[in-house]
Amino acid sequence: MNKTIGVIGGMGPQATLDFFQKVLDNTKAVRDQDHIHLVIDNNPQIPDRTRFLLGQGKSPIKQLVNSAVKLQMMGADLLAMPCNTAHYFYDEIVKFIEIPFVNMIEEVAAHIYERNSKIKRVGLLATKGVYSTKIYDGYLSKYGIETIVPEEGNQAVGETIYTIKKDINLADPTGINNVINGMQAKGAEIIILGCTELPLIMDRYPKGAEYIDTTLVLAKKAVEISIKKE
Amino acid sequence: MNKTIGVIGGMGPQATLDFFQKVLDNTKAVRDQDHIHLVIDNNPQIPDRTRFLLGQGKSPIKQLVNSAVKLQMMGADLLAMPCNTAHYFYDEIVKFIEIPFVNMIEEVAAHIYERNSKIKRVGLLATKGVYSTKIYDGYLSKYGIETIVPEEGNQAVGETIYTIKKDINLADPTGINNVINGMQAKGAEIIILGCTELPLIMDRYPKGAEYIDTTLVLAKKAVEISIKKE
Repeated sequence: MNKTIGVIGGMGPQATLDFFQKVLDNTKAVRDQDHIHLVIDNNPQIPDRTRFLLGQGKSPIKQLVNSAVKLQMMGADLLAMPCNTAHYFYDEIVKFIEIPFVNMIEEVAAHIYERNSKIKRVGLLATKGVYSTKIYDGYLSKYGIETIVPEEGNQAVGETIYTIKKDINLADPTGINNVINGMQAKGAEIIILGCTELPLIMDRYPKGAEYIDTTLVLAKKAVEISIKKE
Repeated sequence: MNKTIGVIGGMGPQATLDFFQKVLDNTKAVRDQDHIHLVIDNNPQIPDRTRFLLGQGKSPIKQLVNSAVKLQMMGADLLAMPCNTAHYFYDEIVKFIEIPFVNMIEEVAAHIYERNSKIKRVGLLATKGVYSTKIYDGYLSKYGIETIVPEEGNQAVGETIYTIKKDINLADPTGINNVINGMQAKGAEIIILGCTELPLIMDRYPKGAEYIDTTLVLAKKAVEISIKKE
């Protein structure tokens, strides 16, 4: 029997739904019963991660740990959290649970290395919370990969993320596309969509670059663990 | 604060995801924190409802009650179950919980009456499980509405439902469209998509008829209850 995936979700809800869709799309199934059991705690009331990391709001840690513990109580055999920024709190959440918790940031770094072990520089599109805490840098540097980020003060990525949360139809990736060009000029060979809102407008980015859909990487890994025979 | 919606899901998983999407689409929100907290128990291992109702398989009641009780334990303030056929077990599940449980079939009947109180005959597209147990008939007859069903022995609707579960791209609604024509010839003024897989191919039905998306009716009602101030 497949393992049950617990999802610490709601950050934001559309990104959680996108993760759910990608789990379904990556499961071989011809009838309901072939699919994976997921328990999704879509709790959008978790305080804004980036606001906290910039010293402007409440900590989300209480809700994150509550969600993890409750999902474990619901019978989850492993956890996944489709939110890059919230992974700042990964080590703290792990302390309170008994079940495996897939680390999205670690999996993205491993995925890039497995895809092409010669890559030396990746561009990172993410929230200010991720940039300010350098969540990706340590995981990527293990593979000898340098993290390229936008120019200091550039607001385009963060603004687009909040616009996607507000109304996806209003999201204009022009600013992001300039950021991508800037990172490519600095040697970025591949671009990480390091916020789970960003793959929601996947079809609007410039065709010239290669993108890593972090939600998809997490979904595939969670499915792989779920269906693995012990 | 909005009430938390617990979702008895996985019947099938894509229909549960569709319900989730319709809850998000019908919630006024400009940021994550404005959205509704949902806890989704997407358990596709619940035994096939129709097979049981036709005397061919195990009862799903244990898993349904377990899901309801666990969702209540997770903090759900109300329950919704985006599966028409599983509503055969509604009264049995209700016995084991303390929180309100939106009855999809009752809401669909009320919705049709509120939409047009003059309607006398509705066509029902559903699983054999729904047809054989006449789940809709009692709720519709309260409003003086007669339920029109396909000719005895017609397999088209059930086959299409299982094809959608298997691979939505393979679903050919030609058989269903003939059934719709047949029901209209018998006086059906409106067609209930009385299985949550059926709205997943909404764009493939004949344009001439009016359809009731039962997933959407349930999603709107659940949102209405969630955001209602006491």
